[in-house]
Amino acid sequence: MTAVSPAPPVATGAPAVLDRCRALVRPALGEAVGRLHPWVGEMARYALGWCEAGGASVAAPVAAPGGKGVRQALAVLGAEAAGAPGRDGVPAAVAVELVHTFSLVHDDIMDGDATRRGRPAVWRAYGTGPAVLAGDALFALAVETLAGAPGGAAAVGTLSTALGDLLRGQADDLVFATRPWTGPERVRPGEYRLMAERKTGALLGCAAALGARLGGAPPATADALDRAGRHLGTAFQVIDDVLGLWGDPAVTGKPVHADLRERKKTYPVLAALDSPGPAARRLAGLLDADGDPAEAAALAEAAGGAAAARDEARRHVREAAAALASVPLAGAAGGELRALAAFLTDRAR
Amino acid sequence: MTAVSPAPPVATGAPAVLDRCRALVRPALGEAVGRLHPWVGEMARYALGWCEAGGASVAAPVAAPGGKGVRQALAVLGAEAAGAPGRDGVPAAVAVELVHTFSLVHDDIMDGDATRRGRPAVWRAYGTGPAVLAGDALFALAVETLAGAPGGAAAVGTLSTALGDLLRGQADDLVFATRPWTGPERVRPGEYRLMAERKTGALLGCAAALGARLGGAPPATADALDRAGRHLGTAFQVIDDVLGLWGDPAVTGKPVHADLRERKKTYPVLAALDSPGPAARRLAGLLDADGDPAEAAALAEAAGGAAAARDEARRHVREAAAALASVPLAGAAGGELRALAAFLTDRAR
Repeated sequence: MTAVSPAPPVATGAPAVLDRCRALVRPALGEAVGRLHPWVGEMARYALGWCEAGGASVAAPVAAPGGKGVRQALAVLGAEAAGAPGRDGVPAAVAVELVHTFSLVHDDIMDGDATRRGRPAVWRAYGTGPAVLAGDALFALAVETLAGAPGGAAAVGTLSTALGDLLRGQADDLVFATRPWTGPERVRPGEYRLMAERKTGALLGCAAALGARLGGAPPATADALDRAGRHLGTAFQVIDDVLGLWGDPAVTGKPVHADLRERKKTYPVLAALDSPGPAARRLAGLLDADGDPAEAAALAEAAGGAAAARDEARRHVREAAAALASVPLAGAAGGELRALAAFLTDRAR
Repeated sequence: MTAVSPAPPVATGAPAVLDRCRALVRPALGEAVGRLHPWVGEMARYALGWCEAGGASVAAPVAAPGGKGVRQALAVLGAEAAGAPGRDGVPAAVAVELVHTFSLVHDDIMDGDATRRGRPAVWRAYGTGPAVLAGDALFALAVETLAGAPGGAAAVGTLSTALGDLLRGQADDLVFATRPWTGPERVRPGEYRLMAERKTGALLGCAAALGARLGGAPPATADALDRAGRHLGTAFQVIDDVLGLWGDPAVTGKPVHADLRERKKTYPVLAALDSPGPAARRLAGLLDADGDPAEAAALAEAAGGAAAARDEARRHVREAAAALASVPLAGAAGGELRALAAFLTDRAR
């Protein structure tokens, strides 16, 4: 029963897996983006880190956390887990990478985030209206790419379910920021979990499941990969919250305590508020009074928020491993999927 | 050969056809919108004219040009034209109505239009970020609805092609506004035609073709309905341009000469600029100098722009009729489709 063992060791192979899958997917992704309206295509290439604003090519693609191509790799490995060649998963990989890029472009508008991967966000570089259009076009291109692939039409439902979940999660995240920290209208940790699973987990799960479906996997395998991705996404989001509160901004690339300032409801703070003891009560009072974010972060840690979040992340990593262990996975795909899972979540430890 | 005869008389039945189809589609459309995140669902209902900002219900749905439900009716009639009951076309009708609503919500952001159907645009009523999200969610819901319908998965490619065209047309429309009126970089009437077909025609054609496909029509019938819808959309857009220049703002609901002020490239002006004679030359000089829009409209009429646009619209109406006449259409659907076509374009005469 490796399924319920602690998080497996980080496989040294994860970067190599990502590189291999990126190289496999890149031509088809470039071909798909090349079908866009030229002006929209430039914005898409900028969003993908392939060019500067204005279209000048970059010496090397701009990469950063979130830009490592985890989703496309999951799709390729999903196909390989079904015993098919990785190329059978490429249309799924292209579709999920396009959806991921669309969601980043639009999320930056919604969240008012001016930078992404150390560069101006698309809406800052090209304007809000054009960024809305570029996101829409990436979204449509994703559906078109999958629908046009062999066996893809039957899988469009899987993609659209993930899309719907992703947008429900984004809506929850925005609405949670308007809800109070305390009292009957407060956000519960369980509500957070569902938000994180939808916002971050749905597309990771969809990536692996779509690849598996295009690779001819039985439904049970696709479902298990979907579950694994959803748990990994939840773990990833919880870890992201921890790093946003107590991580090094130079490493995370996010201003420290930005989530607290925006009244975003993050797991460590919700867990801290839910804990018994004086630190939780002082935290509640401070947050209700819009007090100093640094003091709030310290109180959240004192109230056990960091430890609870790390426990929560580990629990989801274990659930993901259990899902992967519940079905037969062909060849090296099982090990490579576990390596990717560890790569996604090792920041927690 | 009614196909190449002049535009048929307006059937008195068009409003009745629209009412019948709207009543058939409304429960499924409401059910689909009910699956959205509650906050997003409120924005969707506002955009559909079903509620006020804040969610209070309206006594009667808000309706206006563009809001009459032509697309959903085309989908229902497409199924009936295939000999199937209209209800077989309902998932297609829901999908195209959701896509249409999505495109209006996002277009108003891109164009900076503050009002729609006499009310604040969604982005003005709820904010830009939420309006981006609401549009995205409507888009995803459209794909989900069609993919989940019997026979719908195989038709998703038709929807995504139309979506891609719609967004390419919107991109062209935005880019055209940045191009000069004269000189080698000017917009040619042929470029306009392609833009209008994509921006307005693709979804009308898709509506009828999707309904036909769900109704079991042979590909030739679906293709003919698609072509008819594309020509009707082009005609509709040209007529819209004419009304924007010389129509009554109280009837059109648009400020007079707004297109000229925004340097939108409209067919009558492009045709006028392309004509020989002194009025065209004076129009070119005036537009290049950003002169008085009222004077520009008068010069465009003197240069034959209004007449050329009406000819162009009539030509597309005839092409639509020819496409409809080129395939067998079951029962009353042929007559009702012709009535809808006339209803869409009778403003030209």
